[in-house]
Amino acid sequence: MRPPRGAFLLGGQSPGHRCAPLTSPRSPLQIRPFEASDWSAVWALLEPVFRAGETFPHDPAISEDEALVAWVEQSQAVMVAVDAAGVLVGTYYLKPNSHALGAHVANAGYVVTDHCRRRGIGSRLCQHSLQAARRLGFRLMQFNLVVSTNTAGIRCWQRNGFQVVGILPGAFRHRQLGYVDCQGSLVRTTAELHISPRVPG
Amino acid sequence: MRPPRGAFLLGGQSPGHRCAPLTSPRSPLQIRPFEASDWSAVWALLEPVFRAGETFPHDPAISEDEALVAWVEQSQAVMVAVDAAGVLVGTYYLKPNSHALGAHVANAGYVVTDHCRRRGIGSRLCQHSLQAARRLGFRLMQFNLVVSTNTAGIRCWQRNGFQVVGILPGAFRHRQLGYVDCQGSLVRTTAELHISPRVPG
Repeated sequence: MRPPRGAFLLGGQSPGHRCAPLTSPRSPLQIRPFEASDWSAVWALLEPVFRAGETFPHDPAISEDEALVAWVEQSQAVMVAVDAAGVLVGTYYLKPNSHALGAHVANAGYVVTDHCRRRGIGSRLCQHSLQAARRLGFRLMQFNLVVSTNTAGIRCWQRNGFQVVGILPGAFRHRQLGYVDCQGSLVRTTAELHISPRVPG
Repeated sequence: MRPPRGAFLLGGQSPGHRCAPLTSPRSPLQIRPFEASDWSAVWALLEPVFRAGETFPHDPAISEDEALVAWVEQSQAVMVAVDAAGVLVGTYYLKPNSHALGAHVANAGYVVTDHCRRRGIGSRLCQHSLQAARRLGFRLMQFNLVVSTNTAGIRCWQRNGFQVVGILPGAFRHRQLGYVDCQGSLVRTTAELHISPRVPG
């Protein structure tokens, strides 16, 4: 059966690249801050996800420059996941979810490359983002508009401690399915996170 | 007993002005589009609400210019309510709550002047904004961060058909009370609204 598609499951193509195994706890996946030279690889991940119009609310016709603003320039932190072969296989952004009096609540978005699905990279990014959020002083993480058809993403976030707050009826205009419900929101506190000496890569 | 404070209940001071009665269905309250010349009166409503830090997440130290951007320039529509004496007693903004694939969901914010509390002006603004939202093509209205201590606002929105989706624990840093829960979100559809020949003033 084809796995459900979701923000964690979609991503850019790297023909010929085989994703390194990530099942070992000593997996060499490195999660590190985004650098300007990463952009073309990050855009290669983001573009098919935005074009698909199934998980993120951005215009499916978004330009590369607009995507750079949305993913990088409007974020407080952007990270990339690089596998053992040095290939960029995932990215996330982290930013405040609201203005000053709501700025202790973080928001994040994740994309993992298409051919590295079901290897736990999304979960690694999620855990990394929670640690990063706590280090940056955020008390809570909130996802606002989680498309109900993104079942793999929702399962992943729930495994990582997120609670579904409620359902927003028809709040997302899915490019294939039309108006679909959203989980709005998923939240979890950062309070009980164990913070290791450094954010683990 | 002092009524609970909320976005609907706080507002600017107009010493000496007595709010015209609004209990009659023929109340002369006029709701009309904001004009540039309204700004100083709108800012007089907004400033004490933002400074209080009890209902809107904006920085309580927000400048007038920043407030103009937040309330007017970033909105799709801004309306003001003017009483029989020509005094501006309320305002609301209306804008999309998200990007393209979530842009059919409207968001709105309301402020009513302090001395015109409990006269149904908030409800009139809310109903007006729902009609305006439907006319503008929005299918849903959503409030994202409704502070749980704003009980009067919450009651008003529920009277106007909004459902509480769930609770966001500690998502608002109330200036007096510290971290308080939010109703996140309140939503209602615009589908069954009766649209009169013109948006009623």
